[in-house]
Amino acid sequence: MPVEIHPTATVYPGTVLGEDVKVLENAVVGKQPSLSPRSTAKREPLPPTEIGDGTIVSTGAVVFAGSRIGARVILGDQSCVRERVTIGDDVVLGRGSLVENDTTIGALTKIQAEAYITAYSTLEEQVFVAPCVVTTNDNFMGRTERRHELVKGPTIRRGARIGGGAILCPGIEIGEEAFVGAGAVVTKDVPPRVVVVGSPARMLREVPDEELLDD
Amino acid sequence: MPVEIHPTATVYPGTVLGEDVKVLENAVVGKQPSLSPRSTAKREPLPPTEIGDGTIVSTGAVVFAGSRIGARVILGDQSCVRERVTIGDDVVLGRGSLVENDTTIGALTKIQAEAYITAYSTLEEQVFVAPCVVTTNDNFMGRTERRHELVKGPTIRRGARIGGGAILCPGIEIGEEAFVGAGAVVTKDVPPRVVVVGSPARMLREVPDEELLDD
Amino acid sequence: MPVEIHPTATVYPGTVLGEDVKVLENAVVGKQPSLSPRSTAKREPLPPTEIGDGTIVSTGAVVFAGSRIGARVILGDQSCVRERVTIGDDVVLGRGSLVENDTTIGALTKIQAEAYITAYSTLEEQVFVAPCVVTTNDNFMGRTERRHELVKGPTIRRGARIGGGAILCPGIEIGEEAFVGAGAVVTKDVPPRVVVVGSPARMLREVPDEELLDD
Repeated sequence: MPVEIHPTATVYPGTVLGEDVKVLENAVVGKQPSLSPRSTAKREPLPPTEIGDGTIVSTGAVVFAGSRIGARVILGDQSCVRERVTIGDDVVLGRGSLVENDTTIGALTKIQAEAYITAYSTLEEQVFVAPCVVTTNDNFMGRTERRHELVKGPTIRRGARIGGGAILCPGIEIGEEAFVGAGAVVTKDVPPRVVVVGSPARMLREVPDEELLDD
Repeated sequence: MPVEIHPTATVYPGTVLGEDVKVLENAVVGKQPSLSPRSTAKREPLPPTEIGDGTIVSTGAVVFAGSRIGARVILGDQSCVRERVTIGDDVVLGRGSLVENDTTIGALTKIQAEAYITAYSTLEEQVFVAPCVVTTNDNFMGRTERRHELVKGPTIRRGARIGGGAILCPGIEIGEEAFVGAGAVVTKDVPPRVVVVGSPARMLREVPDEELLDD
Repeated sequence: MPVEIHPTATVYPGTVLGEDVKVLENAVVGKQPSLSPRSTAKREPLPPTEIGDGTIVSTGAVVFAGSRIGARVILGDQSCVRERVTIGDDVVLGRGSLVENDTTIGALTKIQAEAYITAYSTLEEQVFVAPCVVTTNDNFMGRTERRHELVKGPTIRRGARIGGGAILCPGIEIGEEAFVGAGAVVTKDVPPRVVVVGSPARMLREVPDEELLDD
């Protein structure tokens, strides 16, 4: 099937679109970043965006140059993917969500509406991020020179689930198949296959067997 | 007064627009969903969007097919209303907020900026949802088959108020005229006319008489 | 350098654009508010938007009439600035964030992605607001007549830092160089140069000297 690009969409030259890709109303694909003179982000020239077969870039979504999106991905309405992001196959990115620069997202992961994935994050495969989850990467919030070497987003291991509105402090690791309850504020690493809840998050119990991935 | 549709807006054929409806810059009305092969959402063909007299679809807003919006409603800038949603008269939906599919919102309800209303929610009349409120509907976050029959959004009764950034766990009922404080994490039902605060939310006192609706 | 306005952008007549201003894809500048018949906001005619030299209005951003934006400001993708807002020089407003009406933001302040700055807020210079921060201004959430005289957003003093997903209750003052931890729910004023965390937020320690502004 041919690529479909809505007449109101903007797709920059050089963008690589797989078969059957759809780019919906007002979406913008292949945008180069407009960095502030004060930004600490990298300034190398960015290669074009690559988008895999069957992926849909929904209404009003923005995808930056230098990112590679897999096949059969849905980038939701009004979502945004920054530069140097790698997104695996069959990922769903919810409406209004944001994936910041230099982040990797594994296949089959679902990031729901309005979630915020900070720069320098790693999400493995089959992760579930509920709506409005907040991630962070800088304990110094812009102060001190050494923060630059310490900036680190979360590492969310295969099959972990993060509940609605939960907040992950910088550099946290969420173990395989762990479960973070809605509204939890996670201040330290979470071991595999445990449930944590509360502010600050504390362990509640193990994840029941019937909720584990069965492969 | 005639309908006004900005030249940059997209209104799909079949959409029913009442008198004096305004559709502002880059808004998209009557969009059909683009479901993932893996989505569990329903796949029936959707009837056109219907929008009542005097309603404004603001800049960059997206309204899906299969939804009915009342009269004198404001759908804020960059907001989104998914499919099979019913919105009563005189509702205000704040900038950037999202109402997911299969949700009902009563007349005169105000949903403020960046709030997230999950699928299968019921909000009665004169409800107040403050900015950045998070609602949820799935305790299993995508695991187990029985989750499909258990998915349930909140029921927010007439005149209840939900504070900024509060989080409602799946299936919660908020009683008539109840008050949920800013940042509360609500893990169980809230009785009518009480104030709850904290994480997890606990009862603090009754709502003062002078703050009750007077009709 | 000349002004650059993307062909898909809408800039309303009268807007004052400084040298080298860029208005990117689908941005809307100089929009007049569409008030609800029930809104309590002011209804004076609004003067045109003014935007300073070198400022970038990014993709899909919306800037209302009656606001003045300084020089070298970045208004991020899909962000929104309401009416009667004053933004100083060298401010960064993150992707998807919202600054409500009648708010003042000092020079060099950084408001990160998806943050919500309520109406009638004051942010001084060099403030850092992390992603997804929530501010509020109305303890009555739309009830009682006297709320109109009591509505008050936060006052965030010079150099203060507010962590990811933190929530500020109405009228809170955050002292100079204070630090609010990620996910904190701030229910009372925070003195200068202290660190607060938790829900409700409590003082943890003083801000270390090496994290203070050095001028």
